[in-house]
Amino acid sequence: MTNIYLAGPDVFLPDAIEVGRRKAELCARYGLVGLFPLDNAVALATHDASMQIFRGNEAMMDQADAVIANLTPFRGPSADAGTVYELGYMAGRRKLVLGYSNDPATYAERVARHQPITPSDGLLIGADGLAVEDFGLPDNLMLIHSLELHGAPLVTPRKAPGDVWRDLAAFEACLRIAAERLTPDAAR
Amino acid sequence: MTNIYLAGPDVFLPDAIEVGRRKAELCARYGLVGLFPLDNAVALATHDASMQIFRGNEAMMDQADAVIANLTPFRGPSADAGTVYELGYMAGRRKLVLGYSNDPATYAERVARHQPITPSDGLLIGADGLAVEDFGLPDNLMLIHSLELHGAPLVTPRKAPGDVWRDLAAFEACLRIAAERLTPDAAR
Repeated sequence: MTNIYLAGPDVFLPDAIEVGRRKAELCARYGLVGLFPLDNAVALATHDASMQIFRGNEAMMDQADAVIANLTPFRGPSADAGTVYELGYMAGRRKLVLGYSNDPATYAERVARHQPITPSDGLLIGADGLAVEDFGLPDNLMLIHSLELHGAPLVTPRKAPGDVWRDLAAFEACLRIAAERLTPDAAR
Repeated sequence: MTNIYLAGPDVFLPDAIEVGRRKAELCARYGLVGLFPLDNAVALATHDASMQIFRGNEAMMDQADAVIANLTPFRGPSADAGTVYELGYMAGRRKLVLGYSNDPATYAERVARHQPITPSDGLLIGADGLAVEDFGLPDNLMLIHSLELHGAPLVTPRKAPGDVWRDLAAFEACLRIAAERLTPDAAR
């Protein structure tokens, strides 16, 4: 049984459970078991609900052979912090790390949506006074190169789909890679 | 020799090298060696500069006994993506993970600075249509509880300092914890 941890801010969608179900079904089609984060399975009123979610998610990551991280920008130019944490954790555990983003823009383009950027001395400087990474990558270099070295390059569509939170084409491309790497002998 | 990886968006400051020098000096005062990310030590014009930075940072993390992550919010309600990746990576490597934020606000308060939030059915929903984590924590639960379980609770000042990017009091509090945990026999 090959388990894939399905990281992403999908858990915050109003239809999170439905999106998780669709992802798990796609996993099954590729002979894989999708483990969806627990955020929606814990009674939020419990006094230690957030710690229960953490422990459950960490246990699922430890059981999983790979992560597929939804790195579509979330509330800013970068991916969701929880998802990025999980990507790093899985790379640290030496698991296969895969990711996709439904926004193909570069990081500098994404920052420019939120604040003016000024070139200065060969660097780009944000209105916040801090430098803007300018390597033509879609997000911080630590995420992007981790995927390249410990998994496969970030999967992005040529053009953002109409519904960036529910289009699963890039997710399915990651699944294909996971199946090839982790279950090479399975009939497909 | 006890090495501490100094993660943070500090590398993007105009005076990054000076801030890194001050952090390294503080480390030395606690008998620790601070390893500052390489972003400023690589010639940015090199064709594979970003990959060189990644490989250098990963090698430093693998050599380090602990990370102290600057999790002050960066370009949105959450911490810098590269720093969060590194926190996750170090937790995955089973190193001591410590972190601080110079912004003591809760995650929901931080999101509310960028977009209106509406209560609905016991949840908070952002104008983006996605739920806002509402556990009274300063950032995504995965980061905050990782620190609690794999290091020490996030260090935050009672009140944000005047210069959130250069005030090192919370950083020094993390250093004190690192020294106690990692060099318990050293005279202090």
